[in-house]
Amino acid sequence: MRPDGRRPGEVRTIRITPDFVPSALSSVLIETGRTRVICTISREPKVPSWLVSGGWLTAEYAMLPGATTPRGRRDPGGRGREIQRLIGRSLRASLDLSRLVGPTGALALICDCDVIEADGGTRTAAITGASVALDLALARLRRQGELEHDPRRGSVAAVSVGLMAVQEPDDPRPVVDLCYAEDHCASVDLNVVMLRADANSSLVELQGAAERDTFTRHQLNAMLDLAEPAIDELLARQREAVAQGSTRD
Amino acid sequence: MRPDGRRPGEVRTIRITPDFVPSALSSVLIETGRTRVICTISREPKVPSWLVSGGWLTAEYAMLPGATTPRGRRDPGGRGREIQRLIGRSLRASLDLSRLVGPTGALALICDCDVIEADGGTRTAAITGASVALDLALARLRRQGELEHDPRRGSVAAVSVGLMAVQEPDDPRPVVDLCYAEDHCASVDLNVVMLRADANSSLVELQGAAERDTFTRHQLNAMLDLAEPAIDELLARQREAVAQGSTRD
Amino acid sequence: MRPDGRRPGEVRTIRITPDFVPSALSSVLIETGRTRVICTISREPKVPSWLVSGGWLTAEYAMLPGATTPRGRRDPGGRGREIQRLIGRSLRASLDLSRLVGPTGALALICDCDVIEADGGTRTAAITGASVALDLALARLRRQGELEHDPRRGSVAAVSVGLMAVQEPDDPRPVVDLCYAEDHCASVDLNVVMLRADANSSLVELQGAAERDTFTRHQLNAMLDLAEPAIDELLARQREAVAQGSTRD
Amino acid sequence: MRPDGRRPGEVRTIRITPDFVPSALSSVLIETGRTRVICTISREPKVPSWLVSGGWLTAEYAMLPGATTPRGRRDPGGRGREIQRLIGRSLRASLDLSRLVGPTGALALICDCDVIEADGGTRTAAITGASVALDLALARLRRQGELEHDPRRGSVAAVSVGLMAVQEPDDPRPVVDLCYAEDHCASVDLNVVMLRADANSSLVELQGAAERDTFTRHQLNAMLDLAEPAIDELLARQREAVAQGSTRD
Amino acid sequence: MRPDGRRPGEVRTIRITPDFVPSALSSVLIETGRTRVICTISREPKVPSWLVSGGWLTAEYAMLPGATTPRGRRDPGGRGREIQRLIGRSLRASLDLSRLVGPTGALALICDCDVIEADGGTRTAAITGASVALDLALARLRRQGELEHDPRRGSVAAVSVGLMAVQEPDDPRPVVDLCYAEDHCASVDLNVVMLRADANSSLVELQGAAERDTFTRHQLNAMLDLAEPAIDELLARQREAVAQGSTRD
Amino acid sequence: MRPDGRRPGEVRTIRITPDFVPSALSSVLIETGRTRVICTISREPKVPSWLVSGGWLTAEYAMLPGATTPRGRRDPGGRGREIQRLIGRSLRASLDLSRLVGPTGALALICDCDVIEADGGTRTAAITGASVALDLALARLRRQGELEHDPRRGSVAAVSVGLMAVQEPDDPRPVVDLCYAEDHCASVDLNVVMLRADANSSLVELQGAAERDTFTRHQLNAMLDLAEPAIDELLARQREAVAQGSTRD
Repeated sequence: MRPDGRRPGEVRTIRITPDFVPSALSSVLIETGRTRVICTISREPKVPSWLVSGGWLTAEYAMLPGATTPRGRRDPGGRGREIQRLIGRSLRASLDLSRLVGPTGALALICDCDVIEADGGTRTAAITGASVALDLALARLRRQGELEHDPRRGSVAAVSVGLMAVQEPDDPRPVVDLCYAEDHCASVDLNVVMLRADANSSLVELQGAAERDTFTRHQLNAMLDLAEPAIDELLARQREAVAQGSTRD
Repeated sequence: MRPDGRRPGEVRTIRITPDFVPSALSSVLIETGRTRVICTISREPKVPSWLVSGGWLTAEYAMLPGATTPRGRRDPGGRGREIQRLIGRSLRASLDLSRLVGPTGALALICDCDVIEADGGTRTAAITGASVALDLALARLRRQGELEHDPRRGSVAAVSVGLMAVQEPDDPRPVVDLCYAEDHCASVDLNVVMLRADANSSLVELQGAAERDTFTRHQLNAMLDLAEPAIDELLARQREAVAQGSTRD
Repeated sequence: MRPDGRRPGEVRTIRITPDFVPSALSSVLIETGRTRVICTISREPKVPSWLVSGGWLTAEYAMLPGATTPRGRRDPGGRGREIQRLIGRSLRASLDLSRLVGPTGALALICDCDVIEADGGTRTAAITGASVALDLALARLRRQGELEHDPRRGSVAAVSVGLMAVQEPDDPRPVVDLCYAEDHCASVDLNVVMLRADANSSLVELQGAAERDTFTRHQLNAMLDLAEPAIDELLARQREAVAQGSTRD
Repeated sequence: MRPDGRRPGEVRTIRITPDFVPSALSSVLIETGRTRVICTISREPKVPSWLVSGGWLTAEYAMLPGATTPRGRRDPGGRGREIQRLIGRSLRASLDLSRLVGPTGALALICDCDVIEADGGTRTAAITGASVALDLALARLRRQGELEHDPRRGSVAAVSVGLMAVQEPDDPRPVVDLCYAEDHCASVDLNVVMLRADANSSLVELQGAAERDTFTRHQLNAMLDLAEPAIDELLARQREAVAQGSTRD
Repeated sequence: MRPDGRRPGEVRTIRITPDFVPSALSSVLIETGRTRVICTISREPKVPSWLVSGGWLTAEYAMLPGATTPRGRRDPGGRGREIQRLIGRSLRASLDLSRLVGPTGALALICDCDVIEADGGTRTAAITGASVALDLALARLRRQGELEHDPRRGSVAAVSVGLMAVQEPDDPRPVVDLCYAEDHCASVDLNVVMLRADANSSLVELQGAAERDTFTRHQLNAMLDLAEPAIDELLARQREAVAQGSTRD
Repeated sequence: MRPDGRRPGEVRTIRITPDFVPSALSSVLIETGRTRVICTISREPKVPSWLVSGGWLTAEYAMLPGATTPRGRRDPGGRGREIQRLIGRSLRASLDLSRLVGPTGALALICDCDVIEADGGTRTAAITGASVALDLALARLRRQGELEHDPRRGSVAAVSVGLMAVQEPDDPRPVVDLCYAEDHCASVDLNVVMLRADANSSLVELQGAAERDTFTRHQLNAMLDLAEPAIDELLARQREAVAQGSTRD
């Protein structure tokens, strides 16, 4: 039914390799199908000057030129800046920034998400991978005494959902985790970011765009019904990767 | 209850002045409360080189430095580019681009949204105003013989909805069309863009962000329940403005 | 004789609307014929680091893309930077900068001139309008106790004068306040900025350019003879607008 | 009386060395006192795309960083762009652009003015030197058959005049060709560009700025009275240099 | 003796993984010790406009921000542009560009070298890895009929050599393939690029810099004596990787 | 044999004019054949923030647009930045930076190398000229009491050597100080920078590139054999110029 035989609610095979860049504070290579992203967390020398209290986290997103065919340009442009703002907001939503403070003052972290290979869903893969890297980074900072409390409110994960006319052209159905080939046929593209905290899941970001067709509230609900269990599976993979990465410490 | 005494579902006073820049192909000054945006439609000399068929429309968004206190910088930055991409997608969703073609070939339009005064909701005001300017521009192009068919699929309008702890801190309730003072207190910010075509309304864009708090699907539905009638009111105001602008022609 | 029937020394209809952007420190919409400019005065957080004593004022000038047909680009370029330097110098000439100082130190002001619609004479309209906005801003700063003394030496106003071959091609005659259609035919373009202080008028800036033809000293004097009464009229309009704006305070 | 003992109407010692950069189409080193500028004329591959007919000439102006103490930055900024626009307009005023056409089409020239050492009056020295380089370039292009007719309408030369309180502080008197030390004390700075054609001199550009003080029309006339004979002397030096440069051909 | 126990002439452990980015025309992950670089070859739509005949190859080099501690900036700056010019020249030296031509015209290739982790020797690792990726790309283009002849003149590989005061401070000795810790102590840094063609090795690029100390011709020869066998070993590893990558085709 | 009749090891006629820009701290016009470069040393207000101890020197390199035919662009690009880094490293190698310190703290110098006319070998001429300017600057700073000790370790000079097929195409021979016409035919281009200190010469920088052909170690040695006496001659010219410049002080 789908180009790679997946069921509508089935995410692509995920692999999260912790510490892919061993010299960094923390890092992860996340692979969802053929989409691959390196997520690295580094410390910044100081928090932004406009910040009144607490710590801060920001993100940068870029694609290696060879990640797409035809080759892309290095300048991330408007699309890249939009995505890095989304990643930054999503990660900050998983933190109590007032607790991102250590004995020597507030901490500033930066998360770099660099796409090695792009086959659709790079922004959601980046968020899902970055959340693991952030967990590892915070645990290390606490162990080093740089951070007194755990600022984490939970874990964030993200998935895309689209409306695809799989069988009947007039009745598009929702499918999750679209690869590039599906992305181009889908009439609606919805990116869902959720936070899992205290056994509850809630929405952090919702970005739906329907350039060619529009969508009804009924379809919106059907898409979210599919996204929730998919995100639950991503959260399970994240926990395994955090456990694996922590054994190194 | 709200700073300016509005009910939760009540939009600010709207005023749409067509042809605010008479020398342009079409233009509108839209005022929603103290937020004021000039929307202008111009013709571009040619369609983008990557376009295979049909016409194109793109948008630019900027704020006059004096629109905010303290004064802002002229460079729109990442936030401005994100907004102009949203405006462009929303307007294109209201068009059948394959019909944006005239006797001498495909047309390229550009919509400039310049904020004169900013009091929250500039991006939604820009979309609502730009849709009126687009209607006027297309009617004029048809009258001039530059366009054979009406490429419009309907009208788009947009509103923001937020979750505000009006009475009880733990039970935030949805309110529409937030002014700047509300925007800073709201825990969730949802921008809703809808298309009205053939007496049906459907979703074009949905951008929800919850940096401090998250939101449940129940809250999402309550926000959308409030957004829909608000957008219906904006659509009525748009029709009046289009009628008023057309009398000039 | 002239495209819009004006006499050689007759300026276009002027309208100055004070507080067009109510949230700004001060602002003005100036309309001279179809040329319209928003002038806004804001406070800057600090004076330039190279300034040894006293306050400072600088200006920025830009055109909305839709202000011209065909649509202009947002980057003001060399022409725009030249104009904003002229506006800044003209306004500073109307100030005793050593008195632009308040109880908490020297003040830095910035004047933004944004052209909404361009039909010739945008730089002179910007100076004339900005002088009104500056008067209103200084009065408000004094009322707020931010400024101890009135730093104003007088009011500045500006007009363009050109040489136009109205009747005989070989004998071009001076005309004031050229609209765009005249600007393109004029062989010489002279911008005159004057200061009115203590009932005396004197020259602040004189910028004459004659790309196609040149001009004699006799013609220069004839042009200045026409500019002086025109500027007197602009100064009268400025006084009315300042009075009108002050009633708001 | 003046720092270097000159009379009010006396220009600094001028030296114009033609072909200072022998490999260029034409070039000049002009020295007026300690101000030194290299002016080079090159051919551009094509005329600007917006040009309807005839040829074109544009200019660039920059200072070597070591030309000033303290060292300047390489980016010419707003001031540099303003100056290069002035140089371009002045040189174009000396040409009948409709005749800047050769057997293979319209010609585009570019004049580079690079300041090696700056002691006031760099823009007027640049114009005076560039006019010589332009004469040499046009003569060579005609000799090479690249140009059929002489497009020159005459020669342009420029000088600065200022108002300086030499003896009595309240009665500033005009002086020509200000060096840097004088430039900083002068209350008014007027740059005068004149064209000499058919034994007549007329004004091409007039740029007067009075940031600290203003000037009366009487003072304007006194300044122009001083500028005219000074420019006549510069024109004489230009003729000598053109003659000297032509002997090389 | 050396921080990681290597002998002076011993290179770090090398691992070359072909097709690390499967969707690209060709790619390689090269790891030399902890330095890791992704090299990707892509086709460009057209050759540079200034190229008279034959094909062309250019290179870009950048570091992921997380590749260094502290985190680096994304802008490659002067150092990065210098390195990418070196990589481009080295690869072009291994090609007969007149043969980089296919049935539909000349080919333009671009090699992206993106450093994932930096521990010294990134530019030499990039060249060594890129040469493998280039071999794979050319073989594929020939198989696809895009290239008629093999344009390769041989394989290029590169290594760094430094002078290090291992035992006696006054008698620094050469060591190859410096890691970052050594790089900072070395008094001289020499990058050697060699071409192996028809069983002969010769020099392609030699870049020696001695900011703190200088070096004699005797020391230069000692460094080159050490570089040659090291490069031979790299060339052997390249052949293995090409063989491994080719089995995929 | 060579286009201008020189012997293989013969450098072009050198002329070094000290104090070509008298107002600068120190300056030199160096002419080698038709290549001409102005080298100026200025003081910077402060040392770079990352510098731990001692002084610093940096360089900038640019070409006047008219220095080449066809005219070049003002932006130095990657090539220019590469050259200015080379000049900076070479001059720093001639200094004991720990001694570039005066009574009021560490000194930062900047060397500007601006090419007036380019006929090959601009980077080596710039280094050779800049070394003279640096000597003059340091002597003046010591005389002014700004510098306590002489930080100079010696003098640096540079020359290019190439392999040219002068007689037999298959047996290219080394020639020094290539002019532009030779540069384009040479198969190998080697830039050699040497330091003369305490009567010993040693290598500071060696940059050899062989884009079209490669070179053997035997050829490398032959090129260096030719470079050494050429550099000795340049060092002698430098001493004469320093002596001449010092007489001015």
